[in-house]
Amino acid sequence: MTAESASPGRRGASPKGVARRQEIIDRAIEVFAQRGSDRTSLRAIASEVGVTHAALRHYFGSLEELLVEVYRQAQHDHAVALSAEMTPTELMRLSAERNREIPGLVQLYSTLVAAALEDDRPVARDFVAVRFERLREELAEQVRRTQASGRVRADVDPQEVAALVIAASDGLQSQWLLEPTLDHARILALLDRLLAP
Amino acid sequence: MTAESASPGRRGASPKGVARRQEIIDRAIEVFAQRGSDRTSLRAIASEVGVTHAALRHYFGSLEELLVEVYRQAQHDHAVALSAEMTPTELMRLSAERNREIPGLVQLYSTLVAAALEDDRPVARDFVAVRFERLREELAEQVRRTQASGRVRADVDPQEVAALVIAASDGLQSQWLLEPTLDHARILALLDRLLAP
Repeated sequence: MTAESASPGRRGASPKGVARRQEIIDRAIEVFAQRGSDRTSLRAIASEVGVTHAALRHYFGSLEELLVEVYRQAQHDHAVALSAEMTPTELMRLSAERNREIPGLVQLYSTLVAAALEDDRPVARDFVAVRFERLREELAEQVRRTQASGRVRADVDPQEVAALVIAASDGLQSQWLLEPTLDHARILALLDRLLAP
Repeated sequence: MTAESASPGRRGASPKGVARRQEIIDRAIEVFAQRGSDRTSLRAIASEVGVTHAALRHYFGSLEELLVEVYRQAQHDHAVALSAEMTPTELMRLSAERNREIPGLVQLYSTLVAAALEDDRPVARDFVAVRFERLREELAEQVRRTQASGRVRADVDPQEVAALVIAASDGLQSQWLLEPTLDHARILALLDRLLAP
């Protein structure tokens, strides 16, 4: 999707601090990329990044903020260029395929969504709530475009379709992580077929 | 859906131990029910249940096992009777509506799914993986039945539809928790309409 704006670090605003903060994020993205399709604990990943608890608090405030920043930047690097011709389902499918080049990212996303549903995780909650809202708006717009061009049936509500496509893609990723034979792309293609005129 | 068998406690197998274990589970279900629609941390819930770390380890091994047991039993109490006439989407919608009578349960479910995706959470992983597998089988069977009776279109693969309906319902619950105006039932009804012949 479109790039989400990177949040500036609340701490470490000196040039050296900014560089060190970015170094930690880059290293964390690398660790996620190297994980392959192994599931592993986020705590283990944090320790593998080699960031001490003191440095974590200094540069990010919490592990939660580091993880949000890792997801945001990794997502940005893998952003899918929006094409007016793509149906919303195709967009989510492409985006999911990109994410799987960093398999740890799919797991990280699930963890951020679960954290967002708890009351004491405001950073994750804001990030996920805003992401859902923007994505629903973007996809609803894409539904309208593809309805106009005749690729999506006209008798469906764009906002409802947007929420449905995001939900299907998110839910299928969770099932796929636990059952790798499950074909995420094929099932999203089924939804695409159901949405065709 | 159908009842999932309750796992016997690995510890506390004496009649008194079994009773105390069940007491903790009942209290935890009560706490979840009382939460209303407030999101709150699972740690806070554990402390509200009033179970000490020692008792938790003694009766359940870990917080993870207590949470799986709470979800399993609360789900069981709210199980939806399978009717041959219901489409898979109607079934998931009813099941989701039941779960919302215990709002903390929706949050707990998300947390269990996220935990299942980490490597060091075998209890959650086994529970969620088995739940997905059974639910996909049950719903695929329901797709076949409702295809035969003409309520679901014949040109779709029952197993793919099953995975899609579960994914949509799960994903919509997460979006709903962060945006309560999102109408889970209405959007699942849209999917039902797309699946009609």
